Amino acid sequence: MSPAAAAPALEELLERLADARQRVAGVAHRTPVATSRTLDARVGCRVFLKCENLQRMGAFKFRGAYNTLSRLPDEARRHGVVAYSSGNHAQAVALVARLLEIPATIVMPSTAPALKLDATRDYGAEVVFYDRAGEEREAMAERLAGERGLTLIPPFDHPDIVAGQGTAAAELFEQAGPLDVLLVPVGGGGLIAGAALAARLLRPACRVIGVEPEAGDDGARSFREGRIVRAPCGETIADGARTPSVGRLNFEIIRACVSDMITATDAELKRAMRFVMERLKLVVEPTGVLGLAPLLSGRLAPAGERIGVILSGGNVDLTQAAEWFAETPRE
Amino acid sequence: MSPAAAAPALEELLERLADARQRVAGVAHRTPVATSRTLDARVGCRVFLKCENLQRMGAFKFRGAYNTLSRLPDEARRHGVVAYSSGNHAQAVALVARLLEIPATIVMPSTAPALKLDATRDYGAEVVFYDRAGEEREAMAERLAGERGLTLIPPFDHPDIVAGQGTAAAELFEQAGPLDVLLVPVGGGGLIAGAALAARLLRPACRVIGVEPEAGDDGARSFREGRIVRAPCGETIADGARTPSVGRLNFEIIRACVSDMITATDAELKRAMRFVMERLKLVVEPTGVLGLAPLLSGRLAPAGERIGVILSGGNVDLTQAAEWFAETPRE
Repeated sequence: MSPAAAAPALEELLERLADARQRVAGVAHRTPVATSRTLDARVGCRVFLKCENLQRMGAFKFRGAYNTLSRLPDEARRHGVVAYSSGNHAQAVALVARLLEIPATIVMPSTAPALKLDATRDYGAEVVFYDRAGEEREAMAERLAGERGLTLIPPFDHPDIVAGQGTAAAELFEQAGPLDVLLVPVGGGGLIAGAALAARLLRPACRVIGVEPEAGDDGARSFREGRIVRAPCGETIADGARTPSVGRLNFEIIRACVSDMITATDAELKRAMRFVMERLKLVVEPTGVLGLAPLLSGRLAPAGERIGVILSGGNVDLTQAAEWFAETPRE
Repeated sequence: MSPAAAAPALEELLERLADARQRVAGVAHRTPVATSRTLDARVGCRVFLKCENLQRMGAFKFRGAYNTLSRLPDEARRHGVVAYSSGNHAQAVALVARLLEIPATIVMPSTAPALKLDATRDYGAEVVFYDRAGEEREAMAERLAGERGLTLIPPFDHPDIVAGQGTAAAELFEQAGPLDVLLVPVGGGGLIAGAALAARLLRPACRVIGVEPEAGDDGARSFREGRIVRAPCGETIADGARTPSVGRLNFEIIRACVSDMITATDAELKRAMRFVMERLKLVVEPTGVLGLAPLLSGRLAPAGERIGVILSGGNVDLTQAAEWFAETPRE
């Protein structure tokens, strides 16, 4: 798969989203939408939290992976797929490949945590390590694809990935009723591109706003400068949003359909995580609360509106989270 | 309120449950039912988890408190209510009293954690402390009720409390379809008595099984001996189930409608908590996983059946939970 080789027109993307909804129905969880009077009183608007932390393998990534792999022709399925990721995309591709009986190879850093390594292998994928100091993981995955005839499943910059991720926001629009604003975590931009397409299709009046970690604000800078800014991500606990740049296709969709891009600090993410876990009883990962943090911190104060937020994932080390909370004031 | 002064007949209790369902509708959350293919594969049956950890104030106790307070006559509402509890019942009565604009006094131990104290006061209740070494808290609450003309809201042994708690299981039967077994945490027996009534009403073929902490197995002993056994609870992390005996009314219902009473160790509770938080991304308290622990530990192995489990609450200190997990093997 060559990412965004010929960027499809908006109309074609909207059709792919509609098709993706059919494909994931009954396979991906239609995750619940959580609401909280305490949260609403705290931030002064009605908030609808789309719980993708309760998605299969614990993150929205299942949707894009399923949509993409389910569209592969038989020939490609027989040869198998390859993906590079140390995080949720790896587990998503591994799980979906098992469901569809497609051989999967995952390129992971040799320093990946044992927990994520085990989870990926438990799903039956072959894990190939790369050395951070040596060959780039993307190059290694491409080399494997070429040598073994595998189809490379990119983590975010592909129309099928985008369409799959967009099914989360599409469900939210149906579940929550009219939304004025939708807040979405941004790493490589697959989730927000899909969410923006869903808004265009189902609720064009809704403003879609992306949220990045402050230490990795390449997307916000790209949005302001009107060109893709590539910058290595600084230190942040939002490990799912450490991409150095948004994808090319995704940037086109962001430019066309997204209203704004803002950031959240690690301290704000920790406070938001603590609030969600202590008050809403939901386990979320740092990247997962990017959309909520600006509301709780007051950076964004859309008084009286109906706000959708995608809680994108819940794969976090609980011991690590408890350590963060020990140094974090309660909201 | 004199607990179980004249125990109502089963038929009257079933009517109270039907009435309670009307009362809590639209006020209590109709909490979601979580399912997990991972969990089902692990235990060999289909499990339906009723997420009362996602209930208002974080536990099923809201249901019984709302049902009971909403039935009070105007005169009693004007004078106010009193409850004794250091846990979820205190917060439930405080929150419901605020919603119904009823003055509330809560008797708490002077050693209650600041978090629970603050939560109760945040709901607008007056907190009165008792000294564990001095007057019994129940006696103190009764004295306050007499002196100030307050209505005492008992924590579990009352038909309105039981009927309110029963609405959780009633919803589960509707949401999950036919269940063969329903596993319910047991402290004072209000939740299981209500659940047993709901089963009688909606799914008489379902076996209702109570689960207690091993260190506080008075209910299981009472069940076997056919009389209420009163025994101080030993050390257990299941702080919501430390009652020395089940209520009189509740015991009558348990005897008539419950199939069995079993126990779970603290080690089993920690493993179950870890599983639910890490895999299902739900924050649960130790008492909340009493129903799930026997399935995960293999103490109960109902192969191929459809099993309902009430996750009764989620009010737990996350730092404490992380410490437990550090010493707990992953399931």
